Amino acid sequence: MAQNIYDDPAFFAGYSQLPRQVQGLAGAPEWPAIRAMLPALAGKHVLDLGCGFGWFARWARAEGATSVLGIDLSEKMIARAKADTADAAIEYRIADLEGLELPDASFDLAYSALAFHYIEDFGRLVRRVHRSLVPGALFVFTIEHPIYMAATHPHWWTDKDGRRTWPVNRYAEEGRRRTDWFTEGVLKYHRMIGTTLNTLIGAGFTVRHVEEFAPTADQIAENPSLAEELQRPMMLLVSAQR
Amino acid sequence: MAQNIYDDPAFFAGYSQLPRQVQGLAGAPEWPAIRAMLPALAGKHVLDLGCGFGWFARWARAEGATSVLGIDLSEKMIARAKADTADAAIEYRIADLEGLELPDASFDLAYSALAFHYIEDFGRLVRRVHRSLVPGALFVFTIEHPIYMAATHPHWWTDKDGRRTWPVNRYAEEGRRRTDWFTEGVLKYHRMIGTTLNTLIGAGFTVRHVEEFAPTADQIAENPSLAEELQRPMMLLVSAQR
Repeated sequence: MAQNIYDDPAFFAGYSQLPRQVQGLAGAPEWPAIRAMLPALAGKHVLDLGCGFGWFARWARAEGATSVLGIDLSEKMIARAKADTADAAIEYRIADLEGLELPDASFDLAYSALAFHYIEDFGRLVRRVHRSLVPGALFVFTIEHPIYMAATHPHWWTDKDGRRTWPVNRYAEEGRRRTDWFTEGVLKYHRMIGTTLNTLIGAGFTVRHVEEFAPTADQIAENPSLAEELQRPMMLLVSAQR
Repeated sequence: MAQNIYDDPAFFAGYSQLPRQVQGLAGAPEWPAIRAMLPALAGKHVLDLGCGFGWFARWARAEGATSVLGIDLSEKMIARAKADTADAAIEYRIADLEGLELPDASFDLAYSALAFHYIEDFGRLVRRVHRSLVPGALFVFTIEHPIYMAATHPHWWTDKDGRRTWPVNRYAEEGRRRTDWFTEGVLKYHRMIGTTLNTLIGAGFTVRHVEEFAPTADQIAENPSLAEELQRPMMLLVSAQR
Protein backbone atom coordinates (compact mmCIF):
# COMPACT_ATOMS: atom_id res chain seq x y z
CA MET A 1 0.00 0.00 0.00
CA ALA A 2 1.23 3.48 -0.85
CA GLN A 3 2.16 5.83 1.98
CA ASN A 4 -0.74 8.19 2.70
CA ILE A 5 1.05 11.44 3.52
CA TYR A 6 -1.88 13.52 2.31
CA ASP A 7 -3.98 12.67 5.37
CA ASP A 8 -1.15 13.66 7.74
CA PRO A 9 -2.46 16.89 9.35
CA ALA A 10 0.84 18.78 9.02
CA PHE A 11 1.26 17.72 5.42
CA PHE A 12 -2.33 18.48 4.49
CA ALA A 13 -2.17 21.93 6.08
CA GLY A 14 0.97 22.84 4.13
CA TYR A 15 -0.02 21.17 0.87
CA SER A 16 -3.46 22.81 0.83
CA GLN A 17 -1.77 26.22 0.67
CA LEU A 18 0.22 25.51 -2.51
CA PRO A 19 -0.82 27.85 -5.34
CA ARG A 20 -1.96 24.88 -7.42
CA GLN A 21 -4.32 23.79 -4.63
CA VAL A 22 -5.64 27.28 -3.92
CA GLN A 23 -5.89 28.52 -7.53
CA GLY A 24 -6.42 25.17 -9.24
CA LEU A 25 -4.95 24.34 -12.64
CA ALA A 26 -3.97 27.97 -13.34
CA GLY A 27 -1.70 27.84 -10.30
CA ALA A 28 0.45 25.12 -11.87
CA PRO A 29 3.08 26.54 -14.27
CA GLU A 30 3.14 23.27 -16.24
CA TRP A 31 -0.59 23.36 -16.90
CA PRO A 32 -0.43 25.10 -20.34
CA ALA A 33 2.06 22.43 -21.48
CA ILE A 34 -0.18 19.64 -20.19
CA ARG A 35 -3.26 21.18 -21.76
CA ALA A 36 -1.50 21.22 -25.14
CA MET A 37 -1.04 17.44 -24.80
CA LEU A 38 -4.71 16.71 -24.06
CA PRO A 39 -7.29 15.72 -26.65
CA ALA A 40 -10.64 17.47 -27.08
CA LEU A 41 -12.76 16.23 -24.17
CA ALA A 42 -16.30 16.63 -25.49
CA GLY A 43 -18.13 13.34 -25.09
CA LYS A 44 -15.18 11.61 -23.43
CA HIS A 45 -15.10 9.34 -20.38
CA VAL A 46 -12.16 10.50 -18.27
CA LEU A 47 -10.16 8.78 -15.52
CA ASP A 48 -8.12 10.97 -13.11
CA LEU A 49 -5.61 9.03 -11.00
CA GLY A 50 -4.66 11.03 -7.93
CA CYS A 51 -7.49 13.55 -8.39
CA GLY A 52 -6.84 15.54 -5.21
CA PHE A 53 -9.34 18.37 -4.75
CA GLY A 54 -10.99 17.65 -8.12
CA TRP A 55 -9.73 20.69 -10.06
CA PHE A 56 -9.03 18.64 -13.19
CA ALA A 57 -12.28 16.67 -12.93
CA ARG A 58 -14.33 19.86 -12.88
CA TRP A 59 -12.29 21.39 -15.71
CA ALA A 60 -12.79 18.24 -17.82
CA ARG A 61 -16.54 18.47 -17.35
CA ALA A 62 -16.49 22.17 -18.26
CA GLU A 63 -14.67 21.13 -21.46
CA GLY A 64 -17.53 18.76 -22.28
CA ALA A 65 -16.40 15.41 -20.86
CA THR A 66 -19.34 13.03 -20.42
CA SER A 67 -18.06 11.60 -17.15
CA VAL A 68 -15.05 11.76 -14.86
CA LEU A 69 -13.93 9.15 -12.34
CA GLY A 70 -11.49 10.69 -9.86
CA ILE A 71 -9.48 8.38 -7.62
CA ASP A 72 -7.34 9.37 -4.67
CA LEU A 73 -5.87 7.64 -1.64
CA SER A 74 -6.56 10.59 0.64
CA GLU A 75 -9.85 10.73 2.50
CA LYS A 76 -9.28 14.44 3.19
CA MET A 77 -8.67 15.20 -0.48
CA ILE A 78 -11.75 13.28 -1.60
CA ALA A 79 -13.91 14.88 1.11
CA ARG A 80 -12.83 18.32 -0.08
CA ALA A 81 -13.33 17.34 -3.74
CA LYS A 82 -16.86 16.18 -3.02
CA ALA A 83 -17.61 19.35 -1.05
CA ASP A 84 -16.37 21.51 -3.94
CA THR A 85 -18.21 19.61 -6.71
CA ALA A 86 -21.91 19.72 -7.59
CA ASP A 87 -21.97 17.47 -10.65
CA ALA A 88 -23.52 14.00 -10.82
CA ALA A 89 -21.25 13.08 -13.78
CA ILE A 90 -18.16 13.27 -11.57
CA GLU A 91 -17.57 10.33 -9.28
CA TYR A 92 -14.86 10.50 -6.60
CA ARG A 93 -13.52 7.30 -5.10
CA ILE A 94 -11.00 6.64 -2.31
CA ALA A 95 -8.57 3.98 -3.52
CA ASP A 96 -4.86 3.13 -3.50
CA LEU A 97 -3.23 3.28 -6.96
CA GLU A 98 -1.10 0.31 -5.81
CA GLY A 99 -3.40 -2.64 -6.48
CA LEU A 100 -6.04 -0.48 -8.15
CA GLU A 101 -8.86 -2.25 -9.97
CA LEU A 102 -10.55 -0.59 -12.95
CA PRO A 103 -13.22 -1.68 -15.44
CA ASP A 104 -11.88 -2.77 -18.84
CA ALA A 105 -12.10 -0.62 -21.99
CA SER A 106 -14.07 2.11 -20.24
CA PHE A 107 -12.15 5.38 -20.59
CA ASP A 108 -11.16 7.68 -23.47
CA LEU A 109 -8.50 9.50 -21.44
CA ALA A 110 -6.49 8.56 -18.37
CA TYR A 111 -4.88 11.54 -16.67
CA SER A 112 -2.65 11.84 -13.64
CA ALA A 113 -0.76 14.79 -12.16
CA LEU A 114 2.25 14.27 -9.89
CA ALA A 115 1.02 11.01 -8.35
CA PHE A 116 2.96 8.12 -9.91
CA HIS A 117 6.28 8.90 -8.23
CA TYR A 118 4.58 7.72 -5.02
CA ILE A 119 3.84 4.33 -6.63
CA GLU A 120 6.26 1.45 -6.17
CA ASP A 121 4.77 -0.94 -8.76
CA PHE A 122 4.46 1.34 -11.77
CA GLY A 123 4.37 -1.61 -14.20
CA ARG A 124 1.24 -3.11 -12.69
CA LEU A 125 -0.50 0.26 -12.73
CA VAL A 126 0.41 0.95 -16.37
CA ARG A 127 -0.87 -2.45 -17.50
CA ARG A 128 -4.09 -1.86 -15.57
CA VAL A 129 -4.56 1.58 -17.11
CA HIS A 130 -3.91 0.16 -20.59
CA ARG A 131 -6.72 -2.37 -20.17
CA SER A 132 -9.08 0.30 -18.84
CA LEU A 133 -8.70 2.44 -21.97
CA VAL A 134 -10.49 2.07 -25.28
CA PRO A 135 -8.23 1.61 -28.34
CA GLY A 136 -6.78 4.94 -29.44
CA ALA A 137 -7.29 6.53 -26.03
CA LEU A 138 -4.57 8.74 -24.54
CA PHE A 139 -2.77 8.35 -21.23
CA VAL A 140 -1.36 11.75 -20.18
CA PHE A 141 0.53 12.08 -16.92
CA THR A 142 3.10 14.12 -15.06
CA ILE A 143 5.64 12.87 -12.52
CA GLU A 144 8.56 14.38 -10.71
CA HIS A 145 11.52 14.27 -13.10
CA PRO A 146 14.16 11.67 -12.18
CA ILE A 147 16.84 14.39 -12.31
CA TYR A 148 14.91 16.08 -9.51
CA MET A 149 14.43 12.88 -7.49
CA ALA A 150 17.59 10.84 -7.88
CA ALA A 151 20.06 12.36 -5.42
CA THR A 152 20.28 11.52 -1.74
CA HIS A 153 20.43 15.25 -0.90
CA PRO A 154 18.40 17.01 -3.61
CA HIS A 155 19.11 20.67 -2.89
CA TRP A 156 20.36 23.62 -4.95
CA TRP A 157 23.92 24.70 -4.65
CA THR A 158 25.84 27.47 -6.41
CA ASP A 159 28.62 26.69 -8.89
CA LYS A 160 31.77 28.78 -9.32
CA ASP A 161 30.03 31.09 -11.80
CA GLY A 162 27.25 31.76 -9.29
CA ARG A 163 24.81 29.59 -11.20
CA ARG A 164 22.14 27.57 -9.38
CA THR A 165 23.11 23.94 -9.89
CA TRP A 166 21.35 20.69 -9.05
CA PRO A 167 23.07 17.53 -7.81
CA VAL A 168 22.56 14.17 -9.49
CA ASN A 169 23.73 10.93 -7.94
CA ARG A 170 22.29 7.38 -7.61
CA TYR A 171 20.52 7.94 -10.94
CA ALA A 172 20.76 4.26 -11.94
CA GLU A 173 19.78 3.10 -8.46
CA GLU A 174 16.03 2.97 -8.85
CA GLY A 175 13.62 2.69 -5.96
CA ARG A 176 12.73 4.40 -2.73
CA ARG A 177 13.77 7.94 -1.87
CA ARG A 178 12.98 9.48 1.50
CA THR A 179 12.55 13.25 1.58
CA ASP A 180 11.11 15.89 3.85
CA TRP A 181 8.29 17.96 2.32
CA PHE A 182 5.83 19.63 4.73
CA THR A 183 6.48 16.58 6.96
CA GLU A 184 9.40 14.21 7.50
CA GLY A 185 9.90 10.94 5.72
CA VAL A 186 7.86 11.38 2.55
CA LEU A 187 8.49 8.27 0.42
CA LYS A 188 8.90 8.48 -3.34
CA TYR A 189 10.07 5.99 -5.96
CA HIS A 190 12.79 7.04 -8.37
CA ARG A 191 12.70 5.56 -11.86
CA MET A 192 14.88 6.44 -14.83
CA ILE A 193 13.12 8.06 -17.81
CA GLY A 194 14.03 4.96 -19.81
CA THR A 195 12.23 2.74 -17.31
CA THR A 196 9.11 4.89 -17.36
CA LEU A 197 8.97 4.89 -21.16
CA ASN A 198 9.89 1.22 -21.62
CA THR A 199 7.18 0.27 -19.10
CA LEU A 200 4.62 2.11 -21.22
CA ILE A 201 5.92 0.57 -24.45
CA GLY A 202 6.01 -2.90 -22.88
CA ALA A 203 2.36 -2.56 -21.83
CA GLY A 204 1.34 -1.80 -25.42
CA PHE A 205 1.34 2.01 -25.41
CA THR A 206 2.82 4.14 -28.17
CA VAL A 207 4.76 7.12 -26.82
CA ARG A 208 3.33 10.33 -28.34
CA HIS A 209 5.11 13.15 -26.51
CA VAL A 210 7.72 13.53 -23.78
CA GLU A 211 8.30 16.93 -22.25
CA GLU A 212 10.67 18.02 -19.53
CA PHE A 213 8.80 21.04 -18.29
CA ALA A 214 10.54 24.38 -18.57
CA PRO A 215 8.81 27.72 -17.95
CA THR A 216 8.34 30.12 -20.85
CA ALA A 217 9.90 33.59 -20.97
CA ASP A 218 6.45 35.07 -20.30
CA GLN A 219 5.99 32.87 -17.23
CA ILE A 220 9.39 33.89 -15.89
CA ALA A 221 8.64 37.59 -16.50
CA GLU A 222 5.46 37.19 -14.47
CA ASN A 223 7.07 35.03 -11.77
CA PRO A 224 10.88 35.45 -11.71
CA SER A 225 11.36 32.62 -9.19
CA LEU A 226 10.47 30.19 -12.01
CA ALA A 227 13.79 30.99 -13.74
CA GLU A 228 15.63 28.37 -11.70
CA GLU A 229 13.46 25.70 -13.35
CA LEU A 230 15.56 26.29 -16.50
CA GLN A 231 18.59 24.88 -14.64
CA ARG A 232 17.10 21.43 -14.06
CA PRO A 233 13.71 19.89 -14.86
CA MET A 234 11.38 19.26 -11.94
CA MET A 235 8.62 17.55 -13.91
CA LEU A 236 8.30 15.03 -16.69
CA LEU A 237 5.16 15.19 -18.86
CA VAL A 238 4.27 12.13 -20.93
CA SER A 239 1.57 11.34 -23.47
CA ALA A 240 1.06 7.75 -24.65
CA GLN A 241 -1.65 6.18 -26.75
CA ARG A 242 -3.33 2.79 -26.42
CA MET B 1 29.10 22.16 -41.18
CA ALA B 2 29.96 20.15 -38.10
CA GLN B 3 33.25 20.80 -36.33
CA ASN B 4 35.82 18.20 -37.38
CA ILE B 5 37.74 17.58 -34.19
CA TYR B 6 38.62 14.05 -35.21
CA ASP B 7 41.17 15.22 -37.75
CA ASP B 8 42.91 17.45 -35.20
CA PRO B 9 46.25 15.66 -34.58
CA ALA B 10 46.13 16.01 -30.78
CA PHE B 11 42.54 14.84 -30.64
CA PHE B 12 43.11 11.94 -33.00
CA ALA B 13 46.17 10.77 -31.06
CA GLY B 14 44.28 10.69 -27.77
CA TYR B 15 41.01 9.39 -29.16
CA SER B 16 42.72 6.53 -31.00
CA GLN B 17 43.94 5.18 -27.64
CA LEU B 18 40.47 4.86 -26.07
CA PRO B 19 39.66 1.22 -25.23
CA ARG B 20 36.72 1.32 -27.64
CA GLN B 21 39.01 2.35 -30.47
CA VAL B 22 41.76 -0.16 -29.62
CA GLN B 23 39.56 -3.13 -28.72
CA GLY B 24 36.53 -2.26 -30.85
CA LEU B 25 32.98 -2.94 -29.76
CA ALA B 26 34.06 -5.12 -26.81
CA GLY B 27 35.90 -2.10 -25.38
CA ALA B 28 32.64 -0.15 -25.02
CA PRO B 29 30.76 -1.03 -21.81
CA GLU B 30 27.45 -0.07 -23.38
CA TRP B 31 27.89 -2.48 -26.29
CA PRO B 32 25.98 -5.45 -24.74
CA ALA B 33 23.02 -3.12 -24.13
CA ILE B 34 23.17 -1.81 -27.69
CA ARG B 35 23.49 -5.30 -29.14
CA ALA B 36 20.32 -6.34 -27.27
CA MET B 37 18.48 -3.53 -29.11
CA LEU B 38 19.64 -4.56 -32.58
CA PRO B 39 17.67 -6.81 -34.94
CA ALA B 40 19.08 -9.91 -36.60
CA LEU B 41 21.35 -8.58 -39.36
CA ALA B 42 21.38 -11.47 -41.84
CA GLY B 43 20.44 -10.14 -45.27
CA LYS B 44 20.14 -6.55 -44.07
CA HIS B 45 21.38 -3.33 -45.65
CA VAL B 46 22.96 -1.29 -42.87
CA LEU B 47 23.77 2.42 -42.55
CA ASP B 48 26.34 3.50 -39.94
CA LEU B 49 26.41 7.25 -39.25
CA GLY B 50 29.71 8.25 -37.69
CA CYS B 51 31.37 4.93 -38.49
CA GLY B 52 34.85 5.84 -37.19
CA PHE B 53 37.33 3.02 -37.67
CA GLY B 54 34.65 0.66 -39.02
CA TRP B 55 34.36 -1.69 -36.04
CA PHE B 56 30.58 -1.83 -36.27
CA ALA B 57 30.56 -2.16 -40.05
CA ARG B 58 32.81 -5.21 -39.90
CA TRP B 59 30.80 -6.70 -37.02
CA ALA B 60 27.55 -6.21 -38.97
CA ARG B 61 29.01 -8.05 -41.95
CA ALA B 62 30.21 -10.87 -39.69
CA GLU B 63 26.62 -11.10 -38.44
CA GLY B 64 25.43 -11.59 -42.01
CA ALA B 65 24.52 -8.09 -43.18
CA THR B 66 24.38 -7.89 -46.97
CA SER B 67 25.95 -4.44 -47.13
CA VAL B 68 27.12 -1.64 -44.89
CA LEU B 69 27.50 2.03 -45.77
CA GLY B 70 29.69 3.76 -43.21
CA ILE B 71 29.78 7.57 -43.15
CA ASP B 72 32.15 9.77 -41.20
CA LEU B 73 33.31 13.36 -41.36
CA SER B 74 36.91 12.46 -40.49
CA GLU B 75 39.34 11.71 -43.29
CA LYS B 76 41.69 10.07 -40.79
CA MET B 77 38.98 7.81 -39.43
CA ILE B 78 37.82 6.77 -42.88
CA ALA B 79 41.42 6.17 -44.04
CA ARG B 80 41.99 3.90 -41.05
CA ALA B 81 38.62 2.15 -41.59
CA LYS B 82 39.51 1.43 -45.21
CA ALA B 83 42.97 0.17 -44.23
CA ASP B 84 41.44 -2.19 -41.65
CA THR B 85 38.68 -3.54 -43.91
CA ALA B 86 38.94 -6.06 -46.75
CA ASP B 87 35.30 -6.43 -47.72
CA ALA B 88 33.73 -5.18 -50.94
CA ALA B 89 30.28 -5.12 -49.27
CA ILE B 90 31.38 -2.35 -46.94
CA GLU B 91 31.54 1.15 -48.40
CA TYR B 92 33.08 4.00 -46.42
CA ARG B 93 32.29 7.57 -47.35
CA ILE B 94 33.54 10.90 -46.02
CA ALA B 95 30.56 13.16 -45.43
CA ASP B 96 29.19 15.65 -42.92
CA LEU B 97 26.05 14.44 -41.11
CA GLU B 98 24.88 18.07 -41.23
CA GLY B 99 23.36 18.34 -44.68
CA LEU B 100 23.81 14.63 -45.41
CA GLU B 101 22.13 13.22 -48.49
CA LEU B 102 21.01 9.57 -48.56
CA PRO B 103 19.10 7.42 -51.03
CA ASP B 104 15.41 6.87 -50.20
CA ALA B 105 14.05 3.57 -48.77
CA SER B 106 17.43 1.84 -49.00
CA PHE B 107 18.37 0.60 -45.51
CA ASP B 108 16.99 -1.97 -43.05
CA LEU B 109 18.92 -0.57 -40.10
CA ALA B 110 20.40 2.84 -39.36
CA TYR B 111 22.95 2.80 -36.57
CA SER B 112 24.99 5.53 -34.93
CA ALA B 113 27.26 5.53 -31.90
CA LEU B 114 28.04 8.75 -30.04
CA ALA B 115 27.90 11.02 -33.07
CA PHE B 116 24.63 12.96 -32.98
CA HIS B 117 25.56 15.18 -30.03
CA TYR B 118 27.96 16.88 -32.47
CA ILE B 119 25.06 17.69 -34.83
CA GLU B 120 23.31 21.02 -34.58
CA ASP B 121 20.33 20.26 -36.85
CA PHE B 122 19.16 16.93 -35.42
CA GLY B 123 15.66 17.34 -36.88
CA ARG B 124 16.89 17.51 -40.46
CA LEU B 125 19.08 14.45 -39.94
CA VAL B 126 16.26 12.41 -38.38
CA ARG B 127 13.88 13.23 -41.22
CA ARG B 128 16.57 12.27 -43.74
CA VAL B 129 17.27 8.96 -41.97
CA HIS B 130 13.54 8.21 -41.83
CA ARG B 131 13.24 8.56 -45.61
CA SER B 132 16.33 6.41 -46.14
CA LEU B 133 14.83 3.46 -44.25
CA VAL B 134 12.39 0.86 -45.52
CA PRO B 135 9.09 0.56 -43.59
CA GLY B 136 9.60 -1.39 -40.37
CA ALA B 137 13.35 -0.70 -40.28
CA LEU B 138 15.01 0.21 -36.98
CA PHE B 139 17.03 3.31 -36.13
CA VAL B 140 19.31 2.52 -33.19
CA PHE B 141 21.64 5.18 -31.84
CA THR B 142 23.56 6.33 -28.82
CA ILE B 143 24.32 9.90 -27.77
CA GLU B 144 25.85 11.53 -24.76
CA HIS B 145 23.11 11.80 -22.15
CA PRO B 146 21.81 15.35 -21.61
CA ILE B 147 22.45 14.98 -17.86
CA TYR B 148 26.11 14.50 -18.79
CA MET B 149 26.17 17.42 -21.24
CA ALA B 150 23.97 20.13 -19.81
CA ALA B 151 26.14 21.90 -17.23
CA THR B 152 28.64 24.66 -17.97
CA HIS B 153 31.25 22.88 -15.80
CA PRO B 154 30.48 19.16 -16.12
CA HIS B 155 32.82 17.64 -13.53
CA TRP B 156 32.39 15.28 -10.58
CA TRP B 157 32.31 16.65 -7.12
CA THR B 158 31.83 14.92 -3.76
CA ASP B 159 28.71 15.45 -1.66
CA LYS B 160 28.65 15.57 2.15
CA ASP B 161 28.30 11.77 2.34
CA GLY B 162 31.41 11.32 0.19
CA ARG B 163 29.32 10.30 -2.82
CA ARG B 164 30.42 11.19 -6.35
CA THR B 165 27.86 13.70 -7.59
CA TRP B 166 27.26 15.29 -10.97
CA PRO B 167 26.15 18.89 -11.54
CA VAL B 168 23.16 19.76 -13.67
CA ASN B 169 22.40 23.29 -14.77
CA ARG B 170 21.17 24.95 -18.00
CA TYR B 171 19.23 21.75 -18.73
CA ALA B 172 16.41 23.59 -20.52
CA GLU B 173 18.88 25.81 -22.38
CA GLU B 174 19.45 23.71 -25.46
CA GLY B 175 22.25 24.26 -27.90
CA ARG B 176 26.00 24.59 -28.04
CA ARG B 177 28.29 23.40 -25.25
CA ARG B 178 32.05 23.95 -25.40
CA THR B 179 34.21 21.40 -23.60
CA ASP B 180 37.81 20.26 -23.52
CA TRP B 181 38.37 16.61 -24.45
CA PHE B 182 41.81 15.66 -25.77
CA THR B 183 41.85 19.17 -27.25
CA GLU B 184 40.31 22.50 -26.29
CA GLY B 185 37.03 23.81 -27.55
CA VAL B 186 35.18 20.66 -28.58
CA LEU B 187 31.67 21.72 -29.62
CA LYS B 188 28.63 19.64 -28.74
CA TYR B 189 24.90 20.33 -28.91
CA HIS B 190 22.79 19.70 -25.83
CA ARG B 191 19.20 18.58 -26.33
CA MET B 192 16.71 17.49 -23.70
CA ILE B 193 15.60 13.83 -23.84
CA GLY B 194 12.12 15.09 -24.62
CA THR B 195 13.42 16.99 -27.66
CA THR B 196 15.31 13.96 -28.96
CA LEU B 197 12.27 11.70 -28.62
CA ASN B 198 9.73 14.23 -29.92
CA THR B 199 11.95 14.83 -32.97
CA LEU B 200 11.86 11.12 -33.74
CA ILE B 201 8.09 10.92 -33.18
CA GLY B 202 7.53 14.03 -35.29
CA ALA B 203 9.49 12.50 -38.17
CA GLY B 204 7.24 9.43 -38.14
CA PHE B 205 9.26 7.04 -35.97
CA THR B 206 7.76 4.90 -33.21
CA VAL B 207 9.94 4.83 -30.09
CA ARG B 208 10.75 1.21 -29.23
CA HIS B 209 13.27 1.42 -26.40
CA VAL B 210 15.02 4.12 -24.38
CA GLU B 211 17.91 3.17 -22.14
CA GLU B 212 20.09 5.31 -19.91
CA PHE B 213 23.16 3.13 -19.85
CA ALA B 214 24.26 1.79 -16.48
CA PRO B 215 26.96 -0.86 -16.05
CA THR B 216 25.97 -4.28 -14.72
CA ALA B 217 27.32 -5.68 -11.43
CA ASP B 218 29.52 -8.05 -13.44
CA GLN B 219 30.95 -5.16 -15.45
CA ILE B 220 31.72 -3.21 -12.27
CA ALA B 221 33.36 -6.28 -10.68
CA GLU B 222 35.61 -6.53 -13.73
CA ASN B 223 36.24 -2.79 -13.99
CA PRO B 224 35.56 -1.01 -10.66
CA SER B 225 35.98 2.45 -12.21
CA LEU B 226 32.65 1.89 -13.97
CA ALA B 227 30.81 2.14 -10.63
CA GLU B 228 30.62 5.93 -10.89
CA GLU B 229 28.45 5.51 -13.97
CA LEU B 230 25.65 4.46 -11.58
CA GLN B 231 25.65 8.00 -10.14
CA ARG B 232 24.67 9.69 -13.40
CA PRO B 233 24.09 8.42 -16.93
CA MET B 234 26.71 9.24 -19.54
CA MET B 235 24.92 7.74 -22.51
CA LEU B 236 21.41 7.56 -23.88
CA LEU B 237 20.53 4.56 -26.08
CA VAL B 238 17.47 4.82 -28.31
CA SER B 239 15.70 2.43 -30.64
CA ALA B 240 12.98 3.73 -32.98
CA GLN B 241 11.13 2.08 -35.83
CA ARG B 242 10.05 3.52 -39.16
